[in-house]
Amino acid sequence: MNEPIKAVQLGCGPIGCSIAKLAASKSRIDIVGAVDPAFAGGDLGELLDDRSLNGLTITGDARSTLERTRPDVVLQATSSSLAQVLPQLEEVLEFGVNVVSTCEEMSYPHFHQPKLSEKIDRLAVQRDATVLASGVNPGFLMDAWPVFMTGISQDVDSVVCIRRQNAAHRRLPFQRKIGAGLSVDAFRQRVEDGQIRHVGLPESVAMIAAGLGLQLDDVHETIEPVVAKTDVRSEALSVAAGQVAGVKQVANGVIDGAAVIRLEFSAYIGADDPQDAVHIKGSPDLDVVIPGGVHGDLATASAIVNAVPRVVSAPPGLKTMIDIPPMAAFQ
Amino acid sequence: MNEPIKAVQLGCGPIGCSIAKLAASKSRIDIVGAVDPAFAGGDLGELLDDRSLNGLTITGDARSTLERTRPDVVLQATSSSLAQVLPQLEEVLEFGVNVVSTCEEMSYPHFHQPKLSEKIDRLAVQRDATVLASGVNPGFLMDAWPVFMTGISQDVDSVVCIRRQNAAHRRLPFQRKIGAGLSVDAFRQRVEDGQIRHVGLPESVAMIAAGLGLQLDDVHETIEPVVAKTDVRSEALSVAAGQVAGVKQVANGVIDGAAVIRLEFSAYIGADDPQDAVHIKGSPDLDVVIPGGVHGDLATASAIVNAVPRVVSAPPGLKTMIDIPPMAAFQ
Repeated sequence: MNEPIKAVQLGCGPIGCSIAKLAASKSRIDIVGAVDPAFAGGDLGELLDDRSLNGLTITGDARSTLERTRPDVVLQATSSSLAQVLPQLEEVLEFGVNVVSTCEEMSYPHFHQPKLSEKIDRLAVQRDATVLASGVNPGFLMDAWPVFMTGISQDVDSVVCIRRQNAAHRRLPFQRKIGAGLSVDAFRQRVEDGQIRHVGLPESVAMIAAGLGLQLDDVHETIEPVVAKTDVRSEALSVAAGQVAGVKQVANGVIDGAAVIRLEFSAYIGADDPQDAVHIKGSPDLDVVIPGGVHGDLATASAIVNAVPRVVSAPPGLKTMIDIPPMAAFQ
Repeated sequence: MNEPIKAVQLGCGPIGCSIAKLAASKSRIDIVGAVDPAFAGGDLGELLDDRSLNGLTITGDARSTLERTRPDVVLQATSSSLAQVLPQLEEVLEFGVNVVSTCEEMSYPHFHQPKLSEKIDRLAVQRDATVLASGVNPGFLMDAWPVFMTGISQDVDSVVCIRRQNAAHRRLPFQRKIGAGLSVDAFRQRVEDGQIRHVGLPESVAMIAAGLGLQLDDVHETIEPVVAKTDVRSEALSVAAGQVAGVKQVANGVIDGAAVIRLEFSAYIGADDPQDAVHIKGSPDLDVVIPGGVHGDLATASAIVNAVPRVVSAPPGLKTMIDIPPMAAFQ
C-alpha cells in the first residue's frame, strides 16, 4: 500500500479530464500516462490546467503507452456503449491491467448483454485483472446506494429511486442535451433519433434486481418531455410556457406485471425541490433523501477515482458496484 | 448457492430471537440449532412463536451443537463486550465456522483493542472462517453508511452523523435504560456506574476514520442527560419539566485538536424531528437524511441476517462492515 498506484488516463474529454485531475490530487495515485487520439501530442498538465502534470504528453496509442508505463490501472472515459469500449478493454487486458470505466452500459451489463459480459469477465480472469464501471448514475445513486440501504431491511416489496435536477444551474450543453427550449414535437423527434437519452437506467434496474436476488420478467423505459407550465429561464436559456423545459426518463423493473423497481430521472429548468431519494417499501419502509441532490459531474469523477483502491485489490473478473466493498473518499 | 446456508443461533435473548426468526423466514437459510444456557431444553419454535421451528430444542452447550450440526455460520447475540465474546468465538472457530455477531465492540475493534483484534483475525484465518460484527448501530447508520456515502465525494473535511430517536415510541425497558424520569443527579450516578451507555460509538468513529484513511489522535465520548423543558410523556412514563427525558451521547474523532468525525446519538421522550442523518463537509458538501429515523430493533436483525451470504462467501479473517460488499435484503 506504500507504493502509489500507477494510473493511465484513457479518454481526455471533459469527464476524463475531471477524473485525471482528481486522481492527480491523490497522493496514493500517480498519473503515468494519458491516451486520446483527439489530443495526441498535447500536454496533459496544460489540458487540465494542473502544473503537477506538465510534461506528460498525451499519446494517440494505448498499446505503446501501456507497454512503456506498465500501470496498475487504466481510468477509461471514452464511451457509454459496451460494444464500443470492448476493443479498448481487450487491448488493456492484454497487459493484465485493471480498469475503472465510466462506460454506462458496463455498470451492470449481465442482464442486457450477458454474452459480452461473460466474454469480458473471462478475459479479465485470464489476465488476472479487475474491470469495473463506476459513476454517480449509473453506478451509485440509482443502484448501489439503494441496494446498500436495503441491508437494514427485513424484506423489500419495491424500490423507487428519484433523481430530480434543476437544469437551470447546469452548463448550457447539458440544457441543450435534455431538450430545453424545444417544442414537444422536436423533442419527440430527438428522442426517436436517440439524441435525448440518459444511458444507464435499465442497467441500474438490473443491478438492484441482482442485489435483491430478484428475477425480472422485463425492464422497460420511457422518455417524456417535461413541458413548462409557465415561462422559466436559466442564465443561458429562456423556455416559454408550452415549450420543453427538460426530460423525465423512467425505467421499470417488472415481475408478474408489477413494477417492483422504478427509477425516475428528471432534469429540467425550473425543477422545484431537486433531490436524490430512495424509497423502499417493505418491512419496514425506509425513505432516504439527499435534499438538493448530488452534483453529477463532481460525483462521477469521485466515483471513478475512489473506486481505484478497491479495484486494484479486488479479485479478478468483471465486477459491479455491488461486488466490491464500499468505496470511500481518500486523501 | 443452491444448498441453504446452515445457521446456529447463539444467544436467545430478545435480539437473538428476532434474528433467528428473521433468518428462519429466509429460504436461503436453515436454522439447524440454537444455544443458550438460560433457555436450555426449551423449544425454539415456542420461544419464537414460529411453528416452522417447533421441535428444535435449545441446548446449553455450543460445542456439542456445533459438532452435531456442522453449520456454515453462527449468529451470535450474546454480549456487547469483545472480551466476553472471545471464548465463544474461540469455541466456534475451532470448528471452522463463520460468525456474524451483534457484539458492538467487535464492529471495529482494531483501534481500541488491537491485540484482541489481531488474535481473532489470526485464529479466523487459521480456521478458514470469517468473523464479522454487524448491526444497525454500530455497523451501519453511524459508520458503514457515512463511509459509503463518501464514495461520491472528491475530498472530505469532516463527517457528522446524527441519530435522534423519540423514545416515547419505544418499549418501557428502553425508556428506563436511557434514564427517562430520573433526576439529573440520579442520571449522572448511573452514567458513572456504567448503567447508561450505548456501546459502540467510539468503534463507529474508528471505522469511519479507517474508511477515509485518517489517523486519529484521539476518540472521546460524552454522555449527558437531555432535560425536559416542559412535562412530556410516553404511554408508560411521565417526565416532569426538569427531570431527565433521555440521553445524548456524543463521540468525537480528533486530529490536531479538531473533531473531524462527530457522532451524536440521542434518545429521549418528546424528541422533535427524529431522524438519522449524515452530513459530509468537503468537496462537495453532502447531506443525507432518513426522516423519522430507522427502527433499531428491526434493523439490527436485518443487518445480521443480510450479512450472512456476504460472510459465508468472504475471504477468512476478522472483517468489518467496510470490508465486505454491500449487504442487501434477500428473500
